[in-house]
Amino acid sequence: MKKVTFYPQGNAIETAEKLTVLQAAIQADVHINAPCGGKGICSKCKVVIDGEEVLACQTMITKDMNVIIPLVSAISKHKILDSSDIVFRLSKAEIDPLVRKVYLELTRPSLSNNLSDLERIKRQLKKDYGRPNVQICLPVLRRLPNILRKSDWRVTLTMTEINGIREIIDIEGGNTTNKLYGLVLDIGTTTVVAQLINLIDGEIVAVKSDYNAQISYGEDILSRIMFAEDAKDGLSQLHNSIIRTVNKLIDEIEYASKIVAEKITSIVVAGNTTMVHLFLKLNPKNIRIDPYVATANFIPPIKIGELGIKANPNGYLYCLPGISSYVGGDISADVLAANMHDRDELSLLIDVGTNGEITLGNKDWLIACSCSAGPAFEGGETKFGIRAMSGAIERVQIDRDSLDPIYETIDGITPRGICGSGLIDLVAELFHKGIIDKVGKIRPNLQTTRIRESEDGLEYVIAWSYETAIKKDIVITEFDIKNIIRTKAALYAGASVLVKRMGLQFSELSKIYIAGGFGNYLDIDRAITLGLLPDIPREKFEFIGNGAIAGARLVLSSKTKKDAIEAVARKMTYLDLSYDPEFMHEYSAALFLPHTEMRRFPSIKL
Amino acid sequence: MKKVTFYPQGNAIETAEKLTVLQAAIQADVHINAPCGGKGICSKCKVVIDGEEVLACQTMITKDMNVIIPLVSAISKHKILDSSDIVFRLSKAEIDPLVRKVYLELTRPSLSNNLSDLERIKRQLKKDYGRPNVQICLPVLRRLPNILRKSDWRVTLTMTEINGIREIIDIEGGNTTNKLYGLVLDIGTTTVVAQLINLIDGEIVAVKSDYNAQISYGEDILSRIMFAEDAKDGLSQLHNSIIRTVNKLIDEIEYASKIVAEKITSIVVAGNTTMVHLFLKLNPKNIRIDPYVATANFIPPIKIGELGIKANPNGYLYCLPGISSYVGGDISADVLAANMHDRDELSLLIDVGTNGEITLGNKDWLIACSCSAGPAFEGGETKFGIRAMSGAIERVQIDRDSLDPIYETIDGITPRGICGSGLIDLVAELFHKGIIDKVGKIRPNLQTTRIRESEDGLEYVIAWSYETAIKKDIVITEFDIKNIIRTKAALYAGASVLVKRMGLQFSELSKIYIAGGFGNYLDIDRAITLGLLPDIPREKFEFIGNGAIAGARLVLSSKTKKDAIEAVARKMTYLDLSYDPEFMHEYSAALFLPHTEMRRFPSIKL
Repeated sequence: MKKVTFYPQGNAIETAEKLTVLQAAIQADVHINAPCGGKGICSKCKVVIDGEEVLACQTMITKDMNVIIPLVSAISKHKILDSSDIVFRLSKAEIDPLVRKVYLELTRPSLSNNLSDLERIKRQLKKDYGRPNVQICLPVLRRLPNILRKSDWRVTLTMTEINGIREIIDIEGGNTTNKLYGLVLDIGTTTVVAQLINLIDGEIVAVKSDYNAQISYGEDILSRIMFAEDAKDGLSQLHNSIIRTVNKLIDEIEYASKIVAEKITSIVVAGNTTMVHLFLKLNPKNIRIDPYVATANFIPPIKIGELGIKANPNGYLYCLPGISSYVGGDISADVLAANMHDRDELSLLIDVGTNGEITLGNKDWLIACSCSAGPAFEGGETKFGIRAMSGAIERVQIDRDSLDPIYETIDGITPRGICGSGLIDLVAELFHKGIIDKVGKIRPNLQTTRIRESEDGLEYVIAWSYETAIKKDIVITEFDIKNIIRTKAALYAGASVLVKRMGLQFSELSKIYIAGGFGNYLDIDRAITLGLLPDIPREKFEFIGNGAIAGARLVLSSKTKKDAIEAVARKMTYLDLSYDPEFMHEYSAALFLPHTEMRRFPSIKL
Repeated sequence: MKKVTFYPQGNAIETAEKLTVLQAAIQADVHINAPCGGKGICSKCKVVIDGEEVLACQTMITKDMNVIIPLVSAISKHKILDSSDIVFRLSKAEIDPLVRKVYLELTRPSLSNNLSDLERIKRQLKKDYGRPNVQICLPVLRRLPNILRKSDWRVTLTMTEINGIREIIDIEGGNTTNKLYGLVLDIGTTTVVAQLINLIDGEIVAVKSDYNAQISYGEDILSRIMFAEDAKDGLSQLHNSIIRTVNKLIDEIEYASKIVAEKITSIVVAGNTTMVHLFLKLNPKNIRIDPYVATANFIPPIKIGELGIKANPNGYLYCLPGISSYVGGDISADVLAANMHDRDELSLLIDVGTNGEITLGNKDWLIACSCSAGPAFEGGETKFGIRAMSGAIERVQIDRDSLDPIYETIDGITPRGICGSGLIDLVAELFHKGIIDKVGKIRPNLQTTRIRESEDGLEYVIAWSYETAIKKDIVITEFDIKNIIRTKAALYAGASVLVKRMGLQFSELSKIYIAGGFGNYLDIDRAITLGLLPDIPREKFEFIGNGAIAGARLVLSSKTKKDAIEAVARKMTYLDLSYDPEFMHEYSAALFLPHTEMRRFPSIKL
């Protein structure tokens, strides 16, 4: 009997069988990333045993072992994503994807009918579907003769119809029209999310997400742009890094769904302007320099193979159109997902990512701005901040008397850090229970061991090391709190300026949509207490979760939605706040909890 | 003083200077292929000295030397090509190429106008030229930001407009609209010809030709198809081999014209169906098997980069549309060049290449057939046959009394072999002067040393070894003569069947066009004497030279001609002679000089 314990989860099993570490992990219900299925090919299942990095699938259990799973090898369920279904407002009948399949039964050639293979297909297409002038890409043309004859002239074609290009991009033997897959990608500055979509019924087949590997080159957009400019091969490094992240997610999706990546024949990408530039290896330099000009906001369709993405190289990749250097295709996608562009009533949309973008408008007009919010709510910048993944503290209450917290983690396991909604809860509770003051300073003389001096000033302990999966005290420092206040101030100031500039007041809005990582878990009351959201009736708030990926999925699934998002991007105006004195004024006034002008927050009782 | 003699030319110089072999060759007026300009990079200037292969540019003259220049290192002027201008019937005003350039003066971006680079270009294009919905390829998009700023927002775009795709495929700083180049390729089974075309005035900038390197895998189409099928990586080998030939020609054109290959942004290819298949790496297998089906006759435009051709990889390559497995785009090009498709009167077109193809028709209908003529007239099959290149015997007369020949070579240099027109002259003269009989047998007892026994039967000596560049007697054997008779019989039989099948007689034709390698030099009287061409008034014959490349050049230079050739290919019917009893009958009857039925050749007096 050998005992194997997995960290950070703490799960253990005892076994007498000859198992690999990977097999033991499965028995212990601990996930280790192994896209190759444990064949020792992919090198993705790295774990640390006795201080040495080994592959879990290639290492036998020979004794009692402590196995440490590095973050990269751990699969967590990112609850963040489950929400995207709520804004996928498309019935099965409306599904009309960018890529289609058609089944053909061709007449066998004979001496009296010896049309070429391609012309035979074209003629049948015209007869069955009335499609003249069809193109075909060379790699598929090369496969034609063989597959036609092997399948006895019964084949299924995959065809794109992007931007007037009607092209055969795949051919399969027999009738496979009931199987059609596409991929949507949300390429965020911090997080990348990939969904495999079944384009027959519009359903999500598999979802995977991970940090954008570019993080090691800088946390925010500006530092990435500077890296691209200054480092040797900086742009290539950043580009290769995001392509690697995407390919890793595709590997994981392939493994989880058992659908080979080659069957992915269309990809729709949502991302901010800089992320799309780096993804396509476009130099983002001018985004950072006055007058802040992108290389392109409307990107033409691109062959998947041109980017080295592990999907069908003959398929097309479509980047959602952006508005400006600081309001990208992810925001157009939010608007589409929220359906703002289709309503008479005015609404506001706040997307809280590494940047914060705010959009205001209705079916007649749309205006958007961007405020450098920073990645505080995405697990960046704060000492124990993590993404909304398994083990993240997502809810916090603080007892008024003991000043001890009660917290909940995603999936209810031992905590590993705090995600965005947890931080908002925590800071609001710290403020509400009098532990911090209006400017976010921790009051020094409170009766609790939770508050203590650290090298970064005072800090508050949420979880003691023994109760965590990381075996460290999880704390929030005054520095963290300042950061969160700056972030919420930027978002609130941005929203205020946008609304004022259009001669409106928050009370005139029919809806405020909240998009972004923490979407579903944000406690509205707490966010208002913090002064992050305006103090209007709570029922006007609606979470749309990850609007970027929801919008991308709509476009992948529907040509109508593709036309709609292009109209949105063309219609939307960009308001540049970087030189706006009113924004600076609003921002300074918002650097208090909840705000300098308490009359703006009548429902907050201190 | 050292003496250097070059073979096969025999030219010699004496020099006291320190020269390389390449420099000495230039002084001796001997051409050695050295596309890199003698830098020792390209390894193209291989010569043989003292039995060893060395690079002419890297070898100093240290003593008296005999330098042998292998055929691959020799540049010959192929007169064959000069003729293509005669059928380029396009005025400068009609030049409207598949690729265009537009010059843009863009407004510099500012904070009040910070459209992205691409949208700025699109807006200006729309304003200046009314072109909405323009695409751009990714590699050019990547170069945009830099070149726009380096050129102070004055740039020239190269744009394609093939098959409804309007795409920016190149961008250059400043105004370069007066420079636009395209390439046309005639990919023959035996010979490949490339012309660099100035698309501003339609003129030819440079022409190069060479043997198709696939020859080492088989002389005719069928043997190539079998090689592709049977040999390991046969298709890849044949494909790589033709790509190498084309790239070599482009290298030579680059060297001759001083125009970098990157500036070639469009390519039009004429070739028979099998050659186009091998060029595109399409499996030609089914061309050979009943019911003789090609993969495609209408090939969609292909990115140059996809084929690894040394021109601008973002440009497009367009293969001229073919009719069937045995009547390819080269024949559509002939028809276009001859303008047959545009006339009320009926005409016939005979293309003599490695295969012989015959087309009949007018503006209302067109019908074509193919007869396996074999490469006898292109330098193949006969013992001393060579292409119509420098040193080829192209004219022969035989003295009635002495039976000695008088010959002329291309460029008037010492002979190296006999080309197609020389062979026709020679066989007609041998027949006319009674040296051979009606079936091509050499009469044995004639008073001349020119006729002698060889291992292949009797042969006739045209040039004694001492008068040739190859230092061998140049002869024609009975076997060669049989071959030529078979070739002419196939061509004549094909033409006869086609005309009869349409209920016509040769006398009803307004024109007979002759296309193919020897075009310009063919002596019509001799060809009729031979029974290759029908016996109709001589003024009805017109040479169009290399109609394939002339047609390709028309298409490259004019969108109207591109539409026209597609209409030609759609309209043309294919008549399959392979199972045709009438063709077999006509063929057998034509295996005599000039023909079994002498009444068909009333003007031939024996």
